[in-house]
Amino acid sequence: MRELMPAARAAQESIFSVMSRQAVQYGAVNLGQGFPADPPPSFLVDAARAALGHFDQYSPPAGLPALREAIGADLGVNAEDVVVTCGATEALSVLAQCLYGPGNEVLMLEPVFDVYLPQARLAGATPVTVPMTLTGQGWAVDIAAVRAAVTERTTALLLNTPYNPTGTAFSDDELRQLVMLAREHDLWIISDEVYDELYFGQKPTSPRTLAPERTFTVGSAGKRLESTGWRVGWIACPPGLAAQVTGVRQYGSFCAPMPLQAAVAQGLRQARQEGYYQQLREKYQVRMHLLAGGLRALSATVQEPRGTYFLTVQHPTWDAFTLVRQGVAVIPGSAFYPVHDCPAGLFRAAFCKSTLEIERALEHLSHVSCA
Amino acid sequence: MRELMPAARAAQESIFSVMSRQAVQYGAVNLGQGFPADPPPSFLVDAARAALGHFDQYSPPAGLPALREAIGADLGVNAEDVVVTCGATEALSVLAQCLYGPGNEVLMLEPVFDVYLPQARLAGATPVTVPMTLTGQGWAVDIAAVRAAVTERTTALLLNTPYNPTGTAFSDDELRQLVMLAREHDLWIISDEVYDELYFGQKPTSPRTLAPERTFTVGSAGKRLESTGWRVGWIACPPGLAAQVTGVRQYGSFCAPMPLQAAVAQGLRQARQEGYYQQLREKYQVRMHLLAGGLRALSATVQEPRGTYFLTVQHPTWDAFTLVRQGVAVIPGSAFYPVHDCPAGLFRAAFCKSTLEIERALEHLSHVSCA
Ligand SMILES: Cc1ncc(COP(=O)(O)O)c(C=O)c1O
Ligand SMILES: Cc1ncc(COP(=O)(O)O)c(C=O)c1O
Repeated sequence: MRELMPAARAAQESIFSVMSRQAVQYGAVNLGQGFPADPPPSFLVDAARAALGHFDQYSPPAGLPALREAIGADLGVNAEDVVVTCGATEALSVLAQCLYGPGNEVLMLEPVFDVYLPQARLAGATPVTVPMTLTGQGWAVDIAAVRAAVTERTTALLLNTPYNPTGTAFSDDELRQLVMLAREHDLWIISDEVYDELYFGQKPTSPRTLAPERTFTVGSAGKRLESTGWRVGWIACPPGLAAQVTGVRQYGSFCAPMPLQAAVAQGLRQARQEGYYQQLREKYQVRMHLLAGGLRALSATVQEPRGTYFLTVQHPTWDAFTLVRQGVAVIPGSAFYPVHDCPAGLFRAAFCKSTLEIERALEHLSHVSCA
Repeated sequence: MRELMPAARAAQESIFSVMSRQAVQYGAVNLGQGFPADPPPSFLVDAARAALGHFDQYSPPAGLPALREAIGADLGVNAEDVVVTCGATEALSVLAQCLYGPGNEVLMLEPVFDVYLPQARLAGATPVTVPMTLTGQGWAVDIAAVRAAVTERTTALLLNTPYNPTGTAFSDDELRQLVMLAREHDLWIISDEVYDELYFGQKPTSPRTLAPERTFTVGSAGKRLESTGWRVGWIACPPGLAAQVTGVRQYGSFCAPMPLQAAVAQGLRQARQEGYYQQLREKYQVRMHLLAGGLRALSATVQEPRGTYFLTVQHPTWDAFTLVRQGVAVIPGSAFYPVHDCPAGLFRAAFCKSTLEIERALEHLSHVSCA
């Protein structure tokens, strides 16, 4: 028989799926995959129940007009510049197809979210990663290294803020320098902001505010509204480009799930009105401190996050594939380092889990023999 | 500013979206885009309402296990060979990425469903279309022409049965010859069967039954369960290939909408048990005859379909872009002929609309002045 294409032959089950599967297999607490333990807010679930039976057929490929309006109002952009997708994953896939192809390079930072590289390759382009630095002061962008990595073939800079897995958000100074670089070389900026409402302290700056003419902002109702399985995401495009992006988007999955689009249209407004995101941040800040404090008490080095629902942790003797058998699933740091070397003993732990789960995980970890 | 990739610059609003928009603009009855007037069955809506609040986070990329089981049981394949996607559109997009790439050709028939060509091109491959013949006896496959179109570079044959827009289903003899050709040249077969339960008379044969080793069967809950906006589709793969297909699938949209997957898992079983598809066929057979009879009375030539919810019609003086201003939206035949010449006066009319809408459309058409 004929073989499948190289992309299919190379494709592997993601580390997130692997660890979730092993967590079930070994009965481990799952601090691996980034999905929340809590259900979506009841106002969102109620809106979806009401939409079912009324919003069941195709929406336009760019999205239900009411949802494009709601996203536009929420982000402060025009509804016509918004394209709705099946989650941020599809948003990123569509942008890869729109912004780079054979002969092009796309710059991204490492540790890197797992889909960025294969999506660039499926589009025919070459991903180029620049490692973040990790010191006693925490994670930082090496601007000089990013600058040195730009070539004639570079077409885009793929940023993620707040940043999975580091938990950082770019400082205004880092962003200013990255935007300057993008302007100098006429690079597109893809800004993955699925954690835009999950921050601690001051709200991180969105690259779009500094470079609206070249920034595609990617977002997701999954992370904002605790509904990762609903598959409603979006792209806010630079003015005038949404029609072309929609043209490509319609060949991917035609449109996002209609009843859930209708619900999110209502949910985005209600979340703002009812201070839902503030409550979400307060909830996760408590759990973050619980997990970070507990890990530090077990001699781990913890980078306290400014956003996302992840911590990066270093421990000299822990190993993710051993820990899962001992009752705690986490993601090995190496999963985020497909190109460069991973800092020693690094892993990512999620605190979007219940307080009870976090306590049980810490309990299990306290029994791990440091061989 | 930098330009978008050629695929994005070439991408256009689909004719289906254009006609739906114009239908609204001119207050026309919409016999254009293929979405049903009726809502999904209440057992499906109820199942989705119950799933919300309980099935809200990511499923595995291959799909909710209960849904893979239900699809496998329905189609008579193993659950492990099933991959769930965001509609059949995504299923076809994933298969394009898995089965062909730069330097490859993929064979398809013309008139052709609109996404097949751009999806092949986005995968880097060259689509090659072979026209169907249309005579007094109706539509037929020109097997000799298909055979003549195979080259060293051909990797796949993309079939659609029941066939949009012709309304045909391949005869057993046509299928036998197509399968023989695929075996001779070791071609993959992609069999788009989104209308598999929408047939009149005898159930059409699925290519998978003749060539299980090389056939990827594409299906959709949207068409079967009157829920085109729910975005739950599937691929039944030849044994052993689902893991690699899933590897590519996860980079497209990660997974299909979870609460709707849970509902469809239940709905597929219930639809069989309650004879829902039989009722669906009976309902549409009545509407099909109403529309076909009415059109014939207005001197149109109508190809009576064996399946789908579309009729192909020829009329010497009607023009789709004029008709929509006169109260009836249909799809011009030329939309299905991107390469070869469209038979004169051809268009597609959908009968998945209410009896009242069909009657109103016929009323409007009877007033159209045949200038
Ligand atoms: C940085 C980042 N981008 C994108 C995604 C995907 O989001 P979605 O679930 O909306 O596809 C995730 C999910 O974990 C993520 O962490
Ligand atoms: C032949 C054919 N294939 C695929 C599709 C897309 O199906 P889905 O809505 O499940 O993406 C359609 C929709 O009209 C179709 O007619």
